[in-house]
Amino acid sequence: MEIIGERINGMFKDIKEAIINQDKKVIQDWAIKQTENGASWLDVNVGASAPDKVAAMKWLINTIQEVVDTPLCLDSTDYDLIEEGLKVCKRPAMINSCHADRYKIERVFPMAKYYNAKVIGLAMSETSGIPKNADARVALAMEMVAACDEFGLPFEDLYIDPLILPVNVAQDHPVEAMETIRQVKFLSDPAPKTVVGLSNVSQKCNNRKLINRTMLAMLMACGLDAAIADANDDELMDTAAAARILLNKEIYCDSYAELFKSRKY
Amino acid sequence: MEIIGERINGMFKDIKEAIINQDKKVIQDWAIKQTENGASWLDVNVGASAPDKVAAMKWLINTIQEVVDTPLCLDSTDYDLIEEGLKVCKRPAMINSCHADRYKIERVFPMAKYYNAKVIGLAMSETSGIPKNADARVALAMEMVAACDEFGLPFEDLYIDPLILPVNVAQDHPVEAMETIRQVKFLSDPAPKTVVGLSNVSQKCNNRKLINRTMLAMLMACGLDAAIADANDDELMDTAAAARILLNKEIYCDSYAELFKSRKY
Repeated sequence: MEIIGERINGMFKDIKEAIINQDKKVIQDWAIKQTENGASWLDVNVGASAPDKVAAMKWLINTIQEVVDTPLCLDSTDYDLIEEGLKVCKRPAMINSCHADRYKIERVFPMAKYYNAKVIGLAMSETSGIPKNADARVALAMEMVAACDEFGLPFEDLYIDPLILPVNVAQDHPVEAMETIRQVKFLSDPAPKTVVGLSNVSQKCNNRKLINRTMLAMLMACGLDAAIADANDDELMDTAAAARILLNKEIYCDSYAELFKSRKY
Repeated sequence: MEIIGERINGMFKDIKEAIINQDKKVIQDWAIKQTENGASWLDVNVGASAPDKVAAMKWLINTIQEVVDTPLCLDSTDYDLIEEGLKVCKRPAMINSCHADRYKIERVFPMAKYYNAKVIGLAMSETSGIPKNADARVALAMEMVAACDEFGLPFEDLYIDPLILPVNVAQDHPVEAMETIRQVKFLSDPAPKTVVGLSNVSQKCNNRKLINRTMLAMLMACGLDAAIADANDDELMDTAAAARILLNKEIYCDSYAELFKSRKY
């Protein structure tokens, strides 16, 4: 299970202020904390309010790379901003994200190939939104799988995101997301990877952590490979470790939960 | 999710002693505690050491029925013992369990029909043991589904158990159990129900509760309907509640975890 640590995001107040004040310590503390707790990737999002987004993205990337080797997941809807970020990434990065619309695929996939980056492919169209059922999401996912072939991207560098909405406002969606992942893993061989923005499922819910970790286990049973999540939620990370053991993806040992945090997947 | 409380079992020392000493309070406390925490059923197992098993079974059943209405799951390999128990059950009970061997089906299914009882059908043969893979388990399960038709048992009164072995000694089995449940729910319409003896998965493991609740969420994502489990493990019961919400089987509300415990499913 690859956990993409979600915390370095300008929508969080401390990150927003650190960007404005060029306060490296706040950023580096989060980079180290998430990495030490088992994050395989670190999401990097400058947020909506940064005055010079390109400068902020480069500063964040360089600041993180001073203290950890963890690869970065560049998170923006602005592909020019992502490309500026990719130029300063020391290790192959991940692009978060690409809609299933043709003009977006044509912009993102060649960029991913050029920079040897992975791509989060959203099973939705920017114009028509998130499909209500799994079948329509799978159809969009398969267009992106086909585009891998077309643009020379390895299938396993594509991470299909079935889209997760809050369970308290769109309660029929989690089941569709599970089914999308199951079908995506089944319909293509080799299959692309799959990813979710996990914390979305519990937005404005009570017992957020309970919902998050239960959803993670259920999605892993359906074939989930990665999640953008709170890498410092110990119970979530323990759930991921236990699920890997139960899926026979890691040899059982008594200390499996501790070991999970010291490894990258 | 139907939780079958596992605690009234003569293999536990306090239950064994209560049976010997005819100490009603110990039994009734567990009956009430499990019911109050959300158990839909109470497993009743006299254990291996009771001198007069029929007397012990009847005493346990009557003792429990004095304080709760929760239906009972009579747990023994001795069908004559189970039948003596069924005679004193006030409400339709569950028979735990029947192997997929023909001579067992012929003994158990007519008895289930006569007493209006449900049956846990094990996806294994007594002679050849637990199949290694899901396909062979599903084949045995389907023989029992066919037997429902033959003996006039409603499909939904059969609970298929894919068999759960400890993950630290048979690590390839949990995935096969998940796959068995998925196929059983898919191949028959109407489908039988599915059940597991959840705690088996973590026998002699570290972090037992973590493994149990992670496995429960994963199995529920595959279609699990019921589990013989520790109904007084609050985190497990909360996981079951959250999974029901995520599977859209219960309308979301902020207090879903508390509500789960006050209802029977």
